[in-house]
Amino acid sequence: MTTLGIIGSGQLGRMLALAALPLGVHCRFLALGDDAAIREFAHGFAPIGDAAIEHGFATGCTAITTEIENIDAALLARVTAHAPVWPPQQAIAHKRDRRAERALLDRLGLPQPRWAETTDSAQDSAAVAAQLAAAWQHLGGAVRAKAAVGGYDGRGQWRLSDAASVTHVDLAAAPFVLEAEVAFDEEFSVIAAFPGDGAAPRFWTPSVNQHVRGILSRCEVAAGRIAVDVEARAQEIVGRLGQALNYRGVLAVEMYRVGEQVLVNEFAPRVHNSGHWTIEGAAVSQFENHVRAALGMPLGSTALRAPCISWNVIGAWPDRHALLDIADLHLHDYGKAPRAGRKLGHLTLVGATASDARVQRIDALIEASRVLAP
Amino acid sequence: MTTLGIIGSGQLGRMLALAALPLGVHCRFLALGDDAAIREFAHGFAPIGDAAIEHGFATGCTAITTEIENIDAALLARVTAHAPVWPPQQAIAHKRDRRAERALLDRLGLPQPRWAETTDSAQDSAAVAAQLAAAWQHLGGAVRAKAAVGGYDGRGQWRLSDAASVTHVDLAAAPFVLEAEVAFDEEFSVIAAFPGDGAAPRFWTPSVNQHVRGILSRCEVAAGRIAVDVEARAQEIVGRLGQALNYRGVLAVEMYRVGEQVLVNEFAPRVHNSGHWTIEGAAVSQFENHVRAALGMPLGSTALRAPCISWNVIGAWPDRHALLDIADLHLHDYGKAPRAGRKLGHLTLVGATASDARVQRIDALIEASRVLAP
Repeated sequence: MTTLGIIGSGQLGRMLALAALPLGVHCRFLALGDDAAIREFAHGFAPIGDAAIEHGFATGCTAITTEIENIDAALLARVTAHAPVWPPQQAIAHKRDRRAERALLDRLGLPQPRWAETTDSAQDSAAVAAQLAAAWQHLGGAVRAKAAVGGYDGRGQWRLSDAASVTHVDLAAAPFVLEAEVAFDEEFSVIAAFPGDGAAPRFWTPSVNQHVRGILSRCEVAAGRIAVDVEARAQEIVGRLGQALNYRGVLAVEMYRVGEQVLVNEFAPRVHNSGHWTIEGAAVSQFENHVRAALGMPLGSTALRAPCISWNVIGAWPDRHALLDIADLHLHDYGKAPRAGRKLGHLTLVGATASDARVQRIDALIEASRVLAP
Repeated sequence: MTTLGIIGSGQLGRMLALAALPLGVHCRFLALGDDAAIREFAHGFAPIGDAAIEHGFATGCTAITTEIENIDAALLARVTAHAPVWPPQQAIAHKRDRRAERALLDRLGLPQPRWAETTDSAQDSAAVAAQLAAAWQHLGGAVRAKAAVGGYDGRGQWRLSDAASVTHVDLAAAPFVLEAEVAFDEEFSVIAAFPGDGAAPRFWTPSVNQHVRGILSRCEVAAGRIAVDVEARAQEIVGRLGQALNYRGVLAVEMYRVGEQVLVNEFAPRVHNSGHWTIEGAAVSQFENHVRAALGMPLGSTALRAPCISWNVIGAWPDRHALLDIADLHLHDYGKAPRAGRKLGHLTLVGATASDARVQRIDALIEASRVLAP
């Protein structure tokens, strides 16, 4: 029996398990809580923090992977003693602190926005405030301050437009990374599956992404939607990053396009929200290829089946009957209780063209129902 | 919480559950055993035959459906008191005895092979033998005798080519239905999803089917593979059958094509092995549309995405690495222990053309590994 251990218990874990089952792969979860998203699976969940349970979890696994980024290094080291962990620990380590991620990109010479950092933690708030002010001064203009550790979906972020706005930042979130805001033409992401052992990755078609208050809201995927030369440059960046990290599994990189130029926003060492469309829209999904890679199986084709648009369902559901009535719209409910700002599910429309009446209808349904965090 | 109860515990139930989960639908199973195929799902299984357990199963369900045909009428009646059961009981009732199925087709005036029946049960073996001989005489030529009750995947069937061969039939399997063998050009199946309340069904593209010793082995699906007028005639048959049964859910009808003529082989009031290709090859699969129909949700598009070929994995697995290495071949492992003649999984190749080198490679892998029952 092939068993894949997954650290985390959210919708990414759920969709990994749904992709793993047809391959004859059982999934078990190690997580902080037994989220609704994974409660459907019999092999269930083991809580993080109990050494005996962790040991039982890890020794039963053929391989272990993660669906979250913020994983304790000591935990990773403990489970690695029992089963191979993919993606590699160093890839996850660089995501524990946004400063480490930025520094890595600089070290690899990969293009990114100008950035600065603060080093002091919240204990010395006067020092943090002074560092913040200095960092803002160094970058100038519109800057985004982000908590270096923790924070997701736009949480733990502040926009600094002038010296005075620095005082609005919650210093308890220190240390910070500051990033010069980019006047981008488009945000997009490139997702790749690395088979491991230095072999060339396979790329899915890039997704053009829209965010609402820092949360991904809509992805658009079509051949040629991102110009071929821009796509090639973006793929080269992802390839170099994966190679540097000795990567195996799915790696997602969010990018800005500024004219012909590509800048890295951030990377995710896991399956990514902007790749959910691959379930119906690609020959093999990001979830299945991540499972295959982690277990050393050959990767499947990442070819695009048809242009797709996907939407996140945030905070509350639109009328499901109306959604299911739309031809070739696919509904994915994560089974989570509604809460403002929470990702409850996603929708993927296959075979969507820009002028498609279905797209406007879904846009309207999504916008009317969405409940963002205050 | 929407809960779908499923009677049965095999791979059809597993694939129904995999399709139900993204819709936010939980599945629970009522079955004779907790087969490997459903063991992955947390809501698990309740054994048939314990009234209290059956009651608990049924009262918690939004709707109930089946993945098997041979269901005790009394059990169906009991659970129907608590939750609606789709397909309707009368559709399942006609499948309990092959003679009832044949008589229904005659009553509806639907074309089928010439047939005859025996009425006595195994208790009076002399009477059964006499009836068998008379029935063979009545039909003449090559005839297939089938146990009227039970039997599947070619079990409980005997080919009678002359009066003498009648003596080879196991009379313990009586009563029998006898069917004149059809010199068909092709076997194919038409699968439809009925939304219920007399509304028009949606049809998937027909599948041309090959069997090995009575077990489905290979399905080929492409637009125009079955001539348009033959397909239209076949769809009319399925539509009339569904209407007569007040059908809701997926209904599959296996047919013979003899020139331009269509004859009904048999129908299945459930998702069907010859529709497994719909998981990747159709906009919405037979499994998802069956779940939608049972729960009164709008049906999804049955449009063909690309021509497909699917194979059953019977008795033993071919080399999985070799299979996964084939572009756009999708592997479905039911998690069952290998045994001669047992369906362990299936494969679907998407975008397959007749001259495709992949098809010959998969044919060879499948034939080399297949283990049929003795």
